Amino acid sequence: MASFNSADFPTVALDEAAGEIVIIDQTLLPGEVKLLRLSKIEDIWEAINVLRVRGAPAIGVTAAFAVYLAGSAVATDDPRVFEKRFGEAAGYLATARPTAVNLFWAIGRMKRALGGALAAALSVADIKAALLKEALAIRDGDIAICKAIGEHALGLLKPGMGLLTHCNAGRLATVEYGTATSVMYLGHEKGYGFKIYCDETRPLLQGARLTAFELAAAGMRPTVICDNMVSSLMKAGKVDAVFTGCDRVAANGDSANKIGTSGVAIIAKHYGVPFYICAPSSTLDMSTPDGAGIVIEQRPAAEVTEMWYKTRMAPADADVYNPAFDVTDASLITAIVTEDGALAPGRLREKYAGGAD
Amino acid sequence: MASFNSADFPTVALDEAAGEIVIIDQTLLPGEVKLLRLSKIEDIWEAINVLRVRGAPAIGVTAAFAVYLAGSAVATDDPRVFEKRFGEAAGYLATARPTAVNLFWAIGRMKRALGGALAAALSVADIKAALLKEALAIRDGDIAICKAIGEHALGLLKPGMGLLTHCNAGRLATVEYGTATSVMYLGHEKGYGFKIYCDETRPLLQGARLTAFELAAAGMRPTVICDNMVSSLMKAGKVDAVFTGCDRVAANGDSANKIGTSGVAIIAKHYGVPFYICAPSSTLDMSTPDGAGIVIEQRPAAEVTEMWYKTRMAPADADVYNPAFDVTDASLITAIVTEDGALAPGRLREKYAGGAD
Repeated sequence: MASFNSADFPTVALDEAAGEIVIIDQTLLPGEVKLLRLSKIEDIWEAINVLRVRGAPAIGVTAAFAVYLAGSAVATDDPRVFEKRFGEAAGYLATARPTAVNLFWAIGRMKRALGGALAAALSVADIKAALLKEALAIRDGDIAICKAIGEHALGLLKPGMGLLTHCNAGRLATVEYGTATSVMYLGHEKGYGFKIYCDETRPLLQGARLTAFELAAAGMRPTVICDNMVSSLMKAGKVDAVFTGCDRVAANGDSANKIGTSGVAIIAKHYGVPFYICAPSSTLDMSTPDGAGIVIEQRPAAEVTEMWYKTRMAPADADVYNPAFDVTDASLITAIVTEDGALAPGRLREKYAGGAD
Repeated sequence: MASFNSADFPTVALDEAAGEIVIIDQTLLPGEVKLLRLSKIEDIWEAINVLRVRGAPAIGVTAAFAVYLAGSAVATDDPRVFEKRFGEAAGYLATARPTAVNLFWAIGRMKRALGGALAAALSVADIKAALLKEALAIRDGDIAICKAIGEHALGLLKPGMGLLTHCNAGRLATVEYGTATSVMYLGHEKGYGFKIYCDETRPLLQGARLTAFELAAAGMRPTVICDNMVSSLMKAGKVDAVFTGCDRVAANGDSANKIGTSGVAIIAKHYGVPFYICAPSSTLDMSTPDGAGIVIEQRPAAEVTEMWYKTRMAPADADVYNPAFDVTDASLITAIVTEDGALAPGRLREKYAGGAD
């Protein structure tokens, strides 16, 4: 793997000539690097369903490519026949992950593009071209947003700093750059020489399995720590800034992200280490006033006690508390970095809701 | 395991009639409950060496029993022959775990008891009786200290509270009660109805494997959490106090304990949850001014990346940071609870070094 570079594998790419989507099978990481070339919508449905491709932005782009490919395979000159067949494929794909908002969002964008093409009375060939254009725009938009987040974040840092991240808000969750990792990729390109630390992120170990993998593949040689080593690491002066992704930001800046994020933020504040949330502005939910309105999913006990292990690691007559996410109070967040720039949490309303309140 | 009670298994017990030490094999927990009856010193050496019995107090008591048994098996009426053979056994046992201070401490106590008996010109039979008495005194002293710690801690609590502990400072590390868990056993006996949470304690999972096991075996039905869930749990109001053990307390109250302890203490302070260190007064090291003087051991990377797992969980070209312990600043500790009572960290010098400075 030492000779392996992240440019060699795509989170999700479209091979137009072959009519295939190319993804790296994330369920096999970090042990095996296997690229999958998928053309049948059933295979793409399965890849999304079992998390071979995961991460909200990556799922959205995969879905856009998938419905484009499904449409391009429809052999008809009748736009109404095309519309029907396209709708069937889109409806089917939407069932791959029932809670993945970006899946519906991307399919919705593709449907609207189809609607526009039909309204303009385009030929089926031109409709297919319009859908390809829209799918590529979804992809390019994701790349541009992630890159902008990284550029804004890089402006906050100096060469040689130590950076900590939690879970995987990396290129494996997007198309390129990632959100929290974008600053690391851009810094690496520019020779900043950052020292990167990855929380392993129990229970599902996305930090050890995915983030450490993708950063190592890009040549950054990250260091993996157990989640409970953050305080030790910060006390030793090894962390100059924390960057994490985010699933939802409330209007006051409270931010829901992978379980453990709020603990890292509390410890960072204790040691005076800046804590940054990286998220596309589409993650800002100005209709939710604060974190109290964000419902946290409880997940299966087996993730903690046996899923990854050789043998069961806790007694059968113990309970397990296993929330998927936690909410980091706005007071613990130095800034929220979107494609628009770095903003103190208290200024979100001013910028995104048209006025301070 | 539901019908299993902690009274049914000893961390370490002496069966005088059989000439055997009885221990529960902790390397098999929580999956298998296997009692071992050991009489040969080579077998006891192996049990200490591979951590079938572990925890400083438990190792000390095991060593005392072991050298008593080795002596009692010496068939001679000549005290000088007895002294030589006893010394050989003690010297051999001391090599079982080179860094275990309590191992040397207990063997030293037994040697001094032998020295006293020899000076008093006792018969070999009476020497053997004196050594038995000393070994039982070491055991009883440990039990009394742990029970006193628990009684002092219980005075700080109310029925129905939620308690969190980290790693295993339980009866499996002592003879009875444990240090941090003593308050839980005593509260359980008295019907306090505590709700107990155990950090799983990566990388070696002592919380999930050992603490959750022993508390469940005693009928307390604990809840296991991943280390990164402490903030979520405290924010939900489920933790009223934290109790952990301690490996060494410096004169200013800075306390070295299992990696992750200081992070729990920082998060507890953030949420206003009291944080208590439980330790025998023998753990107080008044010759070390503060935590900066405590050297922390780095442990093998494989503990983090592969030891427990079905497959390797981090890429080969990532590094690992794996300190065994961290130091919790005195400012984060509500009180240090010894057999003498609960004391604010700043008052240790006053009580244990003969005056404030």
